[in-house]
Amino acid sequence: MNNHNHKRSLRSDMPRRTKQESEQTRSALLAKALELYADRGIEHVSLKEIAAQAGVTHGAVYWHFKNRDDLLFQIYHQIELPFEIQYIEQRQSAKQNPLQALQDYLMGVIHLVTTSTSVQQGYRLFFTLPASPALASMAERLLEDREMVTSHLRYFLKQAKKHKLLQKKLSVILSAQSLSLVLFGLLDQSLVESDPKQYKAQAHNLIHIVMQGMAAEKA
Amino acid sequence: MNNHNHKRSLRSDMPRRTKQESEQTRSALLAKALELYADRGIEHVSLKEIAAQAGVTHGAVYWHFKNRDDLLFQIYHQIELPFEIQYIEQRQSAKQNPLQALQDYLMGVIHLVTTSTSVQQGYRLFFTLPASPALASMAERLLEDREMVTSHLRYFLKQAKKHKLLQKKLSVILSAQSLSLVLFGLLDQSLVESDPKQYKAQAHNLIHIVMQGMAAEKA
Repeated sequence: MNNHNHKRSLRSDMPRRTKQESEQTRSALLAKALELYADRGIEHVSLKEIAAQAGVTHGAVYWHFKNRDDLLFQIYHQIELPFEIQYIEQRQSAKQNPLQALQDYLMGVIHLVTTSTSVQQGYRLFFTLPASPALASMAERLLEDREMVTSHLRYFLKQAKKHKLLQKKLSVILSAQSLSLVLFGLLDQSLVESDPKQYKAQAHNLIHIVMQGMAAEKA
Repeated sequence: MNNHNHKRSLRSDMPRRTKQESEQTRSALLAKALELYADRGIEHVSLKEIAAQAGVTHGAVYWHFKNRDDLLFQIYHQIELPFEIQYIEQRQSAKQNPLQALQDYLMGVIHLVTTSTSVQQGYRLFFTLPASPALASMAERLLEDREMVTSHLRYFLKQAKKHKLLQKKLSVILSAQSLSLVLFGLLDQSLVESDPKQYKAQAHNLIHIVMQGMAAEKA
């Protein structure tokens, strides 16, 4: 047993744990909660069970999270982040080549959904949220985020319009809504699709068709 | 009181009612059941209440329908019919101008969803069916029909390919799946959209984009 471990066993009350240990416990709780919630539905899993399955005490849950809502929001934040990063990355390229950036953004999101287990679990969890008063604030947040995604899509399309890359008669606002329907349709689809390869081919095909359909005809 | 009504009051047992009266009762029951189910969910409405609200006896329900499942299938058949008619109408035109026929089919379905109250109620009812063992056979039927719609879309696209109207690199099978995702996405969307005019504009815009994206470039 090294010196560090020895020290720890002497003062084992939670606040004195190292920051790293605390972060590990928090991550383990978030991951286990996401897994159990996605599997069985939020309303059929207790905080107690999450603690037990993550191998920590019931009290540790309350050390890291105020309550179930807080836990849920923190899980959500983790899932949302990769989508945000996709957008931020492509927002830079959008100034040079907005339609390419838009396509890369859409493909990037599809890639995430087909490769990241936690994004898949998160999607399953948050987009099939039961209509319950206890989850109303979460549901509102999801709706806001959906609108935010549409406004991101609008940004790409506005840039494309400015660069005269869009078909003239297309409305930027309508097309952003159309595109958001396609994107959320694809994400919904990812929940029922059993063959990731087939799903990816289908998603790419649809994104390609839509991008072609919006682009101005080449002179 | 005319002779006909007089006769009816003398022999009021159900089997002897005129065919027309019986048909009226059946229609009233189907319409009321659809309305109540769509409003409150299948599992929160009894056959007794449907009968009462349709102004007929509880027994009349069982005269016309074997049980709730049978009632549900007969409601479904009524809703499904207008979609089938759309397809059959356009299948003829598909031999001459498959892409135009496909667009007319898609627009026709959107028109139905925005103008027919019973189609809207039916869509709300059948596409948000709870996952219950009692409704398993209905759920299976819905899945089969979804596949049938994809095969209809495939028919249009196959004809378009034959006429060299599609982009060469597009796969008919993948594109039919993409299109079916767009169509069911639009139908799902119709359930949450509060402004029918806005919804129709959005749907037309998306259909237009997708059709443009699939069409071969004009030489």
